[in-house]
Amino acid sequence: MNSAILLDLLGIALFAATGALSASRKELDIIGFLFLATVTGIGGGTARDLILGVPVFWVEQPLYILICAVTAAGVFFTAHLLESRYRLLLWLDAVALAAYGVFGAYKGLLVTGSPIIAVVMGMLTGTLGGILRDVLAGEPSVLMRKEIYITAVLAGGLIYVATSLAGLALPLAAGAGFAVALFIRSGALAFGWSLPSYKARPGRNPEDIL
Amino acid sequence: MNSAILLDLLGIALFAATGALSASRKELDIIGFLFLATVTGIGGGTARDLILGVPVFWVEQPLYILICAVTAAGVFFTAHLLESRYRLLLWLDAVALAAYGVFGAYKGLLVTGSPIIAVVMGMLTGTLGGILRDVLAGEPSVLMRKEIYITAVLAGGLIYVATSLAGLALPLAAGAGFAVALFIRSGALAFGWSLPSYKARPGRNPEDIL
Amino acid sequence: MNSAILLDLLGIALFAATGALSASRKELDIIGFLFLATVTGIGGGTARDLILGVPVFWVEQPLYILICAVTAAGVFFTAHLLESRYRLLLWLDAVALAAYGVFGAYKGLLVTGSPIIAVVMGMLTGTLGGILRDVLAGEPSVLMRKEIYITAVLAGGLIYVATSLAGLALPLAAGAGFAVALFIRSGALAFGWSLPSYKARPGRNPEDIL
Repeated sequence: MNSAILLDLLGIALFAATGALSASRKELDIIGFLFLATVTGIGGGTARDLILGVPVFWVEQPLYILICAVTAAGVFFTAHLLESRYRLLLWLDAVALAAYGVFGAYKGLLVTGSPIIAVVMGMLTGTLGGILRDVLAGEPSVLMRKEIYITAVLAGGLIYVATSLAGLALPLAAGAGFAVALFIRSGALAFGWSLPSYKARPGRNPEDIL
Repeated sequence: MNSAILLDLLGIALFAATGALSASRKELDIIGFLFLATVTGIGGGTARDLILGVPVFWVEQPLYILICAVTAAGVFFTAHLLESRYRLLLWLDAVALAAYGVFGAYKGLLVTGSPIIAVVMGMLTGTLGGILRDVLAGEPSVLMRKEIYITAVLAGGLIYVATSLAGLALPLAAGAGFAVALFIRSGALAFGWSLPSYKARPGRNPEDIL
Repeated sequence: MNSAILLDLLGIALFAATGALSASRKELDIIGFLFLATVTGIGGGTARDLILGVPVFWVEQPLYILICAVTAAGVFFTAHLLESRYRLLLWLDAVALAAYGVFGAYKGLLVTGSPIIAVVMGMLTGTLGGILRDVLAGEPSVLMRKEIYITAVLAGGLIYVATSLAGLALPLAAGAGFAVALFIRSGALAFGWSLPSYKARPGRNPEDIL
């Protein structure tokens, strides 16, 4: 199997699982699980395909919908066994982010040939599912947390595009991008890695800035 | 008139009315009413057409925009007469959900021929307008409520697709799907019908699960 | 340079700046600045192009992405010098709204020839970037504020379309639309201009209306 397709399936299934975990935290019914899992699983790729002007992947191949549905059902019947669902959600999201971000960059490069567009499509594809999940579930967006998030998918996309343009074979370039993105995001989750964040002028009260 | 077009007009006008009612709850001005009514009325169908790769319906036929505008103006001048605007919003939303969901399934089946895609497009078309309305107005999403919501539009879409593929004439198949979706959602509103929802492991405190 | 392109660049750069200012209020890192600036800068135009069925502008010309990135970096290193970042955000948003709204109407008219669609595309293009910014940053939407907002971009679009159809040269028609939209929104910001807003029936308690 094409290594890019592997990243695609991995990203969709894991994002679907995070959507279902988010549904479990909201105590929705099984149809709510299906809905949130599907939107999270296919959201990023849908926007990617629309913007690239290519047919939307799951309209071409409805199997992707079934993957989301099966994942949602699996989570519905097993989530109560978990010690910490939010922790698992964050880790699955990390792997999905890395996989789906690199796949987005791959498809962006394939369709447009532009490295800049490829990197941007990687960021968009990797982050949008999670954004939709958090907005729909009414939770604070994972993007607004202090630990590194977008940086991981940006780095993975850059590595993929650079190594790919340098002539590296697809499995190696995709694997390198995936590994780098996952490494950075894992470090952020495990050790709280963060970039220096913007700080308001010292001595000012946040309330004054309104 | 084609019975599917009837469902289309019904769904758009009623969703527009719910957007205007939401604007009245936020005490917006008349342009705010127009905006929220239009986004709610045309949001679901816009996403549906983009994903299906067909021209967006209201760009082809601007009359749809005028329907939303007239509805918004009507609500602006009459909403103060209502006993309970939120109650009315929920009931109009129920009819719109049923009508627009079945129309989405109809158009999805027409364009792709795939029953799975048809059902998914029905769910998407039926729910997206309300999601946009609630996100824009900053209200908790109607999807996250305990009573059955998405299940109704899913059932309506399934009935429409099944009876349609079984050879039932369009008005009958569309009417059956609409009736089933409306029946289920009405029961949920009137009697609090709900599916068994996911429950965290007994004895655990929701706060622990974070 | 085509005067419409000037409005386009102005709108994108200033919306990007408001996205970066919003990132500074959330104390994000520089990649968070880049992300929020880019989404805010290109969001409205992306939806506009998708709905019009034309290629998405920044996929055709990645330079737009660089404009957003440079703007974000500039704000990251200078925002601490500002007295009031939210005040500046609102004023930049006002100019961006006027510029990008008129450009949206211009492109809508160019592609469809329909005055109604042109005005709607102007409203959509002008407001969507700010909506995405506020939703992503988890702030109350600027649209829900009492002072005039959507009305300004609606008026600007109407003036542009009317004068353009009346035969006025592009720079004059675009300039007139821009000036009117900016004048109205500036008055709203400076003097609190508002339209009469919808009021619940006197003597009723807002809590009763739920």
